[in-house]
Amino acid sequence: MKNEIIGRIAQIRALMREEGLDAYYISGANSHMSEYISEHWKPRRFATGFTGSYGEVVITQDEAGLWTDTRYFLQAENELSSTGIKMHKLRTLGAVPVPQWLAENMPAGGRLGVDLFSLAVSSYHSFQQALESKQVEIVAASHILENVWHNRPPLPGNSVFELSESAAGETRTSKFNRILEKIAANGAETVILTALDDIAWTFNLRGSDINYNPVFYSFAIISSHAKKLFVSPEALPAVLLHKLEAEGIETLNYNDFYMSLNQLSGQKVYFDPDTTNMAVGEILQQKCAPVAGLSAATQLKAIKNSAELEGFRKAMRTDGAAMVCTIRWITQQVGQQNITEYDVSQKLSEYRKTGKGFRQDSFAPIIGYKEHGAIVHFGVTRENALPVHPCGILLFDSGGQYETGTTDITRTIAMGTATNQQKRDFTLVLKGMIALSTAVFPEGTKGIHIDMLARKFLWENGLDYGHGTGHGIGHFLNVHEGPSAIRREYNPCGIEPGMVFSNEPGVYRSGQYGIRIENMMACIEKENTEFGRFLTFETLTLCPIDTALVVPEMLSEEEKEWLNRYHKNVREQLSGLLDAETREFLEKLTEEI
Amino acid sequence: MKNEIIGRIAQIRALMREEGLDAYYISGANSHMSEYISEHWKPRRFATGFTGSYGEVVITQDEAGLWTDTRYFLQAENELSSTGIKMHKLRTLGAVPVPQWLAENMPAGGRLGVDLFSLAVSSYHSFQQALESKQVEIVAASHILENVWHNRPPLPGNSVFELSESAAGETRTSKFNRILEKIAANGAETVILTALDDIAWTFNLRGSDINYNPVFYSFAIISSHAKKLFVSPEALPAVLLHKLEAEGIETLNYNDFYMSLNQLSGQKVYFDPDTTNMAVGEILQQKCAPVAGLSAATQLKAIKNSAELEGFRKAMRTDGAAMVCTIRWITQQVGQQNITEYDVSQKLSEYRKTGKGFRQDSFAPIIGYKEHGAIVHFGVTRENALPVHPCGILLFDSGGQYETGTTDITRTIAMGTATNQQKRDFTLVLKGMIALSTAVFPEGTKGIHIDMLARKFLWENGLDYGHGTGHGIGHFLNVHEGPSAIRREYNPCGIEPGMVFSNEPGVYRSGQYGIRIENMMACIEKENTEFGRFLTFETLTLCPIDTALVVPEMLSEEEKEWLNRYHKNVREQLSGLLDAETREFLEKLTEEI
Repeated sequence: MKNEIIGRIAQIRALMREEGLDAYYISGANSHMSEYISEHWKPRRFATGFTGSYGEVVITQDEAGLWTDTRYFLQAENELSSTGIKMHKLRTLGAVPVPQWLAENMPAGGRLGVDLFSLAVSSYHSFQQALESKQVEIVAASHILENVWHNRPPLPGNSVFELSESAAGETRTSKFNRILEKIAANGAETVILTALDDIAWTFNLRGSDINYNPVFYSFAIISSHAKKLFVSPEALPAVLLHKLEAEGIETLNYNDFYMSLNQLSGQKVYFDPDTTNMAVGEILQQKCAPVAGLSAATQLKAIKNSAELEGFRKAMRTDGAAMVCTIRWITQQVGQQNITEYDVSQKLSEYRKTGKGFRQDSFAPIIGYKEHGAIVHFGVTRENALPVHPCGILLFDSGGQYETGTTDITRTIAMGTATNQQKRDFTLVLKGMIALSTAVFPEGTKGIHIDMLARKFLWENGLDYGHGTGHGIGHFLNVHEGPSAIRREYNPCGIEPGMVFSNEPGVYRSGQYGIRIENMMACIEKENTEFGRFLTFETLTLCPIDTALVVPEMLSEEEKEWLNRYHKNVREQLSGLLDAETREFLEKLTEEI
Repeated sequence: MKNEIIGRIAQIRALMREEGLDAYYISGANSHMSEYISEHWKPRRFATGFTGSYGEVVITQDEAGLWTDTRYFLQAENELSSTGIKMHKLRTLGAVPVPQWLAENMPAGGRLGVDLFSLAVSSYHSFQQALESKQVEIVAASHILENVWHNRPPLPGNSVFELSESAAGETRTSKFNRILEKIAANGAETVILTALDDIAWTFNLRGSDINYNPVFYSFAIISSHAKKLFVSPEALPAVLLHKLEAEGIETLNYNDFYMSLNQLSGQKVYFDPDTTNMAVGEILQQKCAPVAGLSAATQLKAIKNSAELEGFRKAMRTDGAAMVCTIRWITQQVGQQNITEYDVSQKLSEYRKTGKGFRQDSFAPIIGYKEHGAIVHFGVTRENALPVHPCGILLFDSGGQYETGTTDITRTIAMGTATNQQKRDFTLVLKGMIALSTAVFPEGTKGIHIDMLARKFLWENGLDYGHGTGHGIGHFLNVHEGPSAIRREYNPCGIEPGMVFSNEPGVYRSGQYGIRIENMMACIEKENTEFGRFLTFETLTLCPIDTALVVPEMLSEEEKEWLNRYHKNVREQLSGLLDAETREFLEKLTEEI
């Protein structure tokens, strides 16, 4: 394998010389800037052998480098050894990002080859800006990789299916109209959709081209007189195709999208520079009057309607039942038979699969026993899995894609008698989780304003966690969804009624254990007063929180009441879905404290 | 007066015609972008008759307009009536700021006259940007106003005095060096100081050219080989002049600053575009290699050293004693004799004047009885003052400039038996004030992250307030000091140990009453753990909080303890400064709840 990599890099360099390129850049993104991508879009792995989910590659005649972040330092070092490819660290003090590195290392007036199809318009502009003073020319060079990568997996074109109007809560036509209204306010008449979840949401369609995300490879163009969906010709079943056509939706071949853009000549076309690739951006620039802005579909999609919220509540019951069954299985098996973190991940999927409307996991489960729990992004495999014993703490973060909604839940349970420190840490995390769950705030509030509610009790005890507190979650769509979030970083998008977020504070004691409690919640209206419109959250997730890890004296009366009320609701909602023994098990888990 | 204004506008228009100007703009700022300004810098009032503290003026041949904000809508309407000057509202929905209005109303290729000496470089650039597409030329035209304004008050040049090294806690030389280090990190070798409080802090000097702010009109240029202070020749006493010269500080005439900039030709000069006027900016642009950034002195000044903090604590004792005496005077007089809000403001100043090291009020006191308390920026005068009766609620916000520190304090007291709603509102405000006072947060936290601590309890009850929670405060300097603040708006500058902030949540019930409780606090280090460096606040202000307005059952045990501990400290610190009767009065005010 290492020799193959060396050979590939040599081939790329030879082609670069032929074309007079001083550097070649591989972004590792797909044409839609998706978080998860399919094999077709993994040239980074092909060229370097690195299998992590994030990394950028630069090849020059003298150097080859992979830029990645803290999660992958060990793995990259391992996978890149003996290939001559150097690892560059990102998100560390003094880190030099790719554009800056290129500006420092490329010759003045040099030529940089990039694949415009896998580079966002906004990223292209940051390259341009960084390289401007050196007068470096950025050259479209996707063919270089294509000439080297002979067995590149094809773009998947799996079958697309429809989400019923009752599940979606809104017709395609209504969504088209709302999107067009929004872009009209920005002076645009036509919009292109490039993010796969935007397209799936707008057309009430779902697919399975990408692991964990029920989306399909596609583009769309929408104006008042034309609705065009560009998708693999095999993907649409005939019945669905005719239904769409009857609604005036033209379906075209995925690859024809770029050609079709030429027909928008002179039009004011709205596009999102963060999810539109530069091959598209170049055509827009040359032919149209492009209007850049946050995708209108992204904005509308984030605010769930009542049918979507009802769907989430339904999915939560199914998901909660699977969680309770898994927790029961773990507590029964541990100490009796050899089980590992990997077995837990398998069991979670197994139980979820029995649930109504389950399609697939919503992300790769994170199962962290003891010290593995302290590795925030720990990806469990059969090989690296620790055996689970009747002691210590087990953290498991998982979720499902149900036809009525997407779930994301973390629970941390004691496998034996917990230490005082473990209980104290858990209770502080729980207090923060409750504080955010019960937050009341005026309209216009942003995530940065309320993030600290989840951290306050940790901070008071010299603790903290290094990740965000809450991300948006799609409705039977991506488990990470924009545009809003609850984080310490500033994000101009606010929290609005109908938005669904995770609420997941934690504490990670390196080499010892990790604690995280994650519920999902929907923003709802609380009241209107002369001082404004006030919002709050409704907790959606239904699954017991391990009271064996709670120090009751550390909770206020209100917090105890919240926990008891929550457990009562969990019991009432889930009992009907469980067999007698599991119901009894749940009764115990949800006893009042 | 109205006729005079009409005549002045006509004169300005005649001069504009002579010079071919389509519009003339008056910013209302001084050459240093100070918050408070002296009479010399009030051309806005001269040209329009408007006496408010904020407003911008545009004059064309057909129109004359004054742009101001909500605070002054009524006043401006009143003062501008029959002058032909139209009021334009700012900070309201659909407000059109001056640059946008000019872009919409000026002829293409037109000429806009401005006074470069009273326009910040950053403001100039926003004018430029707004008017670019219309190809409007911005022309230096300060002489127009000078030709009309014959009796313009001269620039004050009051006596400058030195702050002792022990009070300042750092020598001028050390400050020069730290400023030069900071700008060197930005690639600059010379720095110009333009903000008056920056100069006062850097040179350990104080003055009295501006009401409430102990600063003096000046500019400064600092590099490793030259320290130049530009100041009115009469302002520096001979002894001080010689002392400065002995330290290598060259003192020059205030007016020679602009000429001296020419000598910086070719140098990398650091300047702050928000406090540097465009007359300076133009010279820098033409002659030097300017480096724009937040003033290094502003950044360093915000972090108080231990001598400054000790000075603050001392000032707080003096100030607290004056407050207690005033509160006693109010409670004794009210119902016995006719007293008004104005009398209260006078009494506060009177008692403060008896305090050691008192120089002047730190801002115009805000005294709001009953419905006046709900007007956040109520400026009390002899004419508009309400009589105070033994009922209702009285809010008073005031502060002093002491040689050892600046104070800013608000107390709200019940003049009779308070209603349940008043008590509930007061207690919710108090809970927020305590929550922020006791906040613990990691290094790197910004004001936007913790602002909600002061609002949380209000929000939970459908209440809120429309102003920031905390502003920075200078050390015997401006009562409003940057760069950090505790507000809902994003501010990139964080909260660092040594910074001093106000903590002033409130509730304002229009037409009824206003409640605000304001303490000052210093950011201090709490602890270092493996999870980071954690900070908290030390409360500086020493003055009782009216427990007659507190509902004890609404306070947690921790909040009650905080209040009792605070009152115990107030009693211990202030008793020695009071006569026997006032001490007894204080004992009662600070009784445990």
